Amino acid sequence: MATQAFDLALIQLGNVSGSKEHNLQHAREMVVKAAAGDGNFKPRVVVLPECFNSPYGVKYFPEYAEKIGFQNDQQYDVEKSQSDSIKMLSSVAKETGVWLVGGSIPERDVSDNSVLYNTSTIYSPEGKLVGIHRKVHLFDIDIPGKITFQESKVLTGGSQITQIDTDVGRLGVAICYDVRFPELAMIAARQGCAAMIYPGAFNLTTGPLHWELLARGRAVDNQIYVAMCSPARDTSADYHAWGHSMIVDPLGKVVTEADEAERIVYARIDPEAIKEARKNIPVTIQRRFDVYPDVSA
Amino acid sequence: MATQAFDLALIQLGNVSGSKEHNLQHAREMVVKAAAGDGNFKPRVVVLPECFNSPYGVKYFPEYAEKIGFQNDQQYDVEKSQSDSIKMLSSVAKETGVWLVGGSIPERDVSDNSVLYNTSTIYSPEGKLVGIHRKVHLFDIDIPGKITFQESKVLTGGSQITQIDTDVGRLGVAICYDVRFPELAMIAARQGCAAMIYPGAFNLTTGPLHWELLARGRAVDNQIYVAMCSPARDTSADYHAWGHSMIVDPLGKVVTEADEAERIVYARIDPEAIKEARKNIPVTIQRRFDVYPDVSA
Repeated sequence: MATQAFDLALIQLGNVSGSKEHNLQHAREMVVKAAAGDGNFKPRVVVLPECFNSPYGVKYFPEYAEKIGFQNDQQYDVEKSQSDSIKMLSSVAKETGVWLVGGSIPERDVSDNSVLYNTSTIYSPEGKLVGIHRKVHLFDIDIPGKITFQESKVLTGGSQITQIDTDVGRLGVAICYDVRFPELAMIAARQGCAAMIYPGAFNLTTGPLHWELLARGRAVDNQIYVAMCSPARDTSADYHAWGHSMIVDPLGKVVTEADEAERIVYARIDPEAIKEARKNIPVTIQRRFDVYPDVSA
Repeated sequence: MATQAFDLALIQLGNVSGSKEHNLQHAREMVVKAAAGDGNFKPRVVVLPECFNSPYGVKYFPEYAEKIGFQNDQQYDVEKSQSDSIKMLSSVAKETGVWLVGGSIPERDVSDNSVLYNTSTIYSPEGKLVGIHRKVHLFDIDIPGKITFQESKVLTGGSQITQIDTDVGRLGVAICYDVRFPELAMIAARQGCAAMIYPGAFNLTTGPLHWELLARGRAVDNQIYVAMCSPARDTSADYHAWGHSMIVDPLGKVVTEADEAERIVYARIDPEAIKEARKNIPVTIQRRFDVYPDVSA
């Protein structure tokens, strides 16, 4: 899967309310805006943040969860989906002609109503649903007096690693807390991904501690691009997102970073920069799989 | 291997000259000084930097290399060693009563004169040589116009992961460029190490880019302490070390950091901080070895 240079846009979506209809409409408008570019960048891949159709909180997930719909021969059939979110994302990907990493939504299992996931859906420029990632590692955190959150109370973790083959290269997708587990990015990079894309929503405790560190760490260890796409901060919401959506290059440098407000940030994903990093610091050919196993094997 | 709280000292050794005799004498004095503590800390473990008995450079390795000596039943016999460096390190560990991670020295294979390693030797408070680490990943780097170095021209990489059981807990040891390969720290942490200790010598290009990022990344991913012990910077030497020896806590915070001059830095290694980090952000019990393999298995 050869990578071509392309522009990537992250939508740090604001204004997520209790109205799903409003959230979908606003997300649609922002995808259209992001896809148009800013004069310097004309993105081929656009990313929405985690949980963009619903407030973020375990009490909201059952209410906002949607069934993604039918899957035949490994192809999801958007036509047969009853999910308003899926329909919107497919339609706006097609309208704008971009690959769209549709942040994440609470998903209800198609055959078991009691099972919910935190799921990212990914679309081709033709509007086809080409892949889904169900958050593998659930956000169960308890820092007394600062942040307590337990996704596992209502969600089930996914069991698949997600990589998408696009016409500009292979991309790995995972969600938020998944970034704390280095294996997903190690496997993605070793299997040819040019970037790991994490829709995510760190908070005002874990954000300043670890958001940038984890993004840069995944990038430098694997010599790939890393994109972390957060919601904007809304201090009137139950959960205060860190913001700071960022794209990091294969040397671990932050190429672009938002503040905490609603923003779109762009960067060029350049396969030459990946090649250059790997030529300069040749860790990709120096690994010692005679000493330790290869997690991607 | 239960960890007890203990103090750790890193010696950012300066004044490494062309005279091995001088280098050993100065390193000895600095171990004595570090072991005495600074009033706040009384270290149980003391660390020297990479290549402390020789200038750092491939042209120096053959000249300064020493045979470590005999190994019987997995125990090295310091008495029978012909290495002045080994004798000094053993003697000063015994004199000061500390666990001593003896930075690294160029080692000549005991049975094949043409084979050299970059080797860390580790001593008990009784002066026993309890373990060695031969740098597994050789520093072969080429950033044109900035830094070019090729250890593999003269060195052979080791093939063993190194962990030492002390009376204050288990410690992982690796050397410098080894830190770019996440597996060693992942394995160490999962096998009960409280800290990874890296004698290392980054330079004025890779230092500002990656020294702190890699130290903090290994710490946060594995929720252990990470210590990186550099030589002081000597701009009259062939190789300009970054310095900035540092100790990072299990949340990825830099607890102590040197500038570029000769310094000793100390920090408390506290098993309660490891437990607390793992309780707050429980990644150690959330890994999904049904989805990806465990490199430590």
